[in-house]
Amino acid sequence: MGPEFQLIDAFVAAAAASFRAPAGPGDDAAVLRPARGETCVTVDAVVEGVHFRRASSRLEDVGHKALAVNLSDLAAMGASPRWALVALGVPRGFRLADARRLGAGFGALARSTGTALVGGNVARGPGISLTVTVGGEVRRGRALLRSGACPGDVVWVSGALGDARLGLLLLERPRGPEARRLRGSPGLARGVMQRQRRPEPRLALGASLAGIASSCIDLSDGLVQDAGHLAAASRTALHLDARALPVSTALAAAYPEPRARARAAATGGEDYELLFTAAASRAGPIERLGRRLGLALTKIGEVRRGRGVHLRGLGGGRVEGFDHLA
Amino acid sequence: MGPEFQLIDAFVAAAAASFRAPAGPGDDAAVLRPARGETCVTVDAVVEGVHFRRASSRLEDVGHKALAVNLSDLAAMGASPRWALVALGVPRGFRLADARRLGAGFGALARSTGTALVGGNVARGPGISLTVTVGGEVRRGRALLRSGACPGDVVWVSGALGDARLGLLLLERPRGPEARRLRGSPGLARGVMQRQRRPEPRLALGASLAGIASSCIDLSDGLVQDAGHLAAASRTALHLDARALPVSTALAAAYPEPRARARAAATGGEDYELLFTAAASRAGPIERLGRRLGLALTKIGEVRRGRGVHLRGLGGGRVEGFDHLA
Repeated sequence: MGPEFQLIDAFVAAAAASFRAPAGPGDDAAVLRPARGETCVTVDAVVEGVHFRRASSRLEDVGHKALAVNLSDLAAMGASPRWALVALGVPRGFRLADARRLGAGFGALARSTGTALVGGNVARGPGISLTVTVGGEVRRGRALLRSGACPGDVVWVSGALGDARLGLLLLERPRGPEARRLRGSPGLARGVMQRQRRPEPRLALGASLAGIASSCIDLSDGLVQDAGHLAAASRTALHLDARALPVSTALAAAYPEPRARARAAATGGEDYELLFTAAASRAGPIERLGRRLGLALTKIGEVRRGRGVHLRGLGGGRVEGFDHLA
Repeated sequence: MGPEFQLIDAFVAAAAASFRAPAGPGDDAAVLRPARGETCVTVDAVVEGVHFRRASSRLEDVGHKALAVNLSDLAAMGASPRWALVALGVPRGFRLADARRLGAGFGALARSTGTALVGGNVARGPGISLTVTVGGEVRRGRALLRSGACPGDVVWVSGALGDARLGLLLLERPRGPEARRLRGSPGLARGVMQRQRRPEPRLALGASLAGIASSCIDLSDGLVQDAGHLAAASRTALHLDARALPVSTALAAAYPEPRARARAAATGGEDYELLFTAAASRAGPIERLGRRLGLALTKIGEVRRGRGVHLRGLGGGRVEGFDHLA
């Protein structure tokens, strides 16, 4: 058990300044301060060989991403993060320095987002895994659900779509066609690789959308698939315009053909942007919010009676992951 | 992603009647009802090849145990369970029927303890793993910590010690000396194997100890090791009497030699009994509590100034895991 406690200590020390619980790691459970608003909890895992490879990932990035994907779920609920628990799976040969690097990446994001690391667990496993649970509080109004979209609402999305998937392609196929087209723009290539490694949860946006948006979901599996979840939960249809999807300069350079570009934006996963719906009358406040946050918020379609996701503007092209949802 | 959602659905359906959250699985995060008392949260993992083997474990038992070890941590805090999140790791070849069996074992214990399954996650992994997060509420008084033991307090333990480890030995070494000695008592052997597979968290005891006990910890690693954690957190010494340790008829039959028996009781892990301390004046209420719950509560030592765990009555025998703590 000795090495186990040392690994916990090393992770915790590296993430140290994020501690703020009355009785944190070291007791049988963490004791939390009472919350005033609704509390949201969620769990997600990042697993070696599935979500990352040691050869192409820095462990600092893995620690960041394990927390970021969970915070993105809180953002989609309109909740602000309060605490996190980390269950670490460690293979033979895992070193104290590895625990410190994971903890450093985790801790930097925890500190910048006000997330207190309140406890954890270490178990031996065949590879590295971080299973992170986070709790957040809805400070204003009620939690944003996937199920609140109404016919007539406008569909919005934050940021630019498809960059994280493009970043993965650049990392995994450095001689592929996308990488070739970005060869003259190393800054753009670095930017999308960074979006893949270090997603930034849209916490400020989510917290501000409570009381404005009618429904919300974060984009982890790709726009079309996640829009399908929102449509199903709301028992409505989402009609989206492929030509309206916001894309970055990097995506435009990697996919010069408009339909290929729209397809990349519509299906690329791991962007961790927010897809949300709101009554048409809320366009003013939403546009002001985007300016205040310095974040593009783009109208990409509308909610109608019916079911499924309907993507127009691809000229008959077929979108992967689309047909079985529509 | 299709199979992933089916696996979640199968697990959830099997654990179904334990649902009680306003917005449970299916949204980005679960929304919890507000708690009145202090909230405690903790996470623990059960991993194939580390905590269980498929050859010798029923998946229903694995589902039970994954929740039970977490509820035991809540019991040690004096908290009553409210909700749970499950992160499932599944290997290739994992079937819907496997998810249902895990869910059935998890769900039965969740229902009997009032634990609402509010969300989860499935990720591919090299083996089966269940990482369970639970949240509980302290309904009366404050949470029980490891750090409250004071010199002069009496040390108590619930139930009988060493059975779970004995059960493991019977399962793994069916021709070993312990198994040979229990050959004439199949009922006793079945009982300790059941304690290994299906630990029962001492929730009613823990909730009743709030306001009576000065400190508490659950016994997962073995009495001596866990007593060491409590002594360290309280900055005191625990002086324990090996002859006072409560043992079952099965343990007595498996270890006829008194010192071997005491050693088995002092070091066997996974009993998930509660070790707690209380002022000597609280002996009356504690004894009444034991009678009310039908659970043996035994005085096994006292708290003194100093540090570490001191185990007397082994006649100079050395207790594994003891010396480095004393």
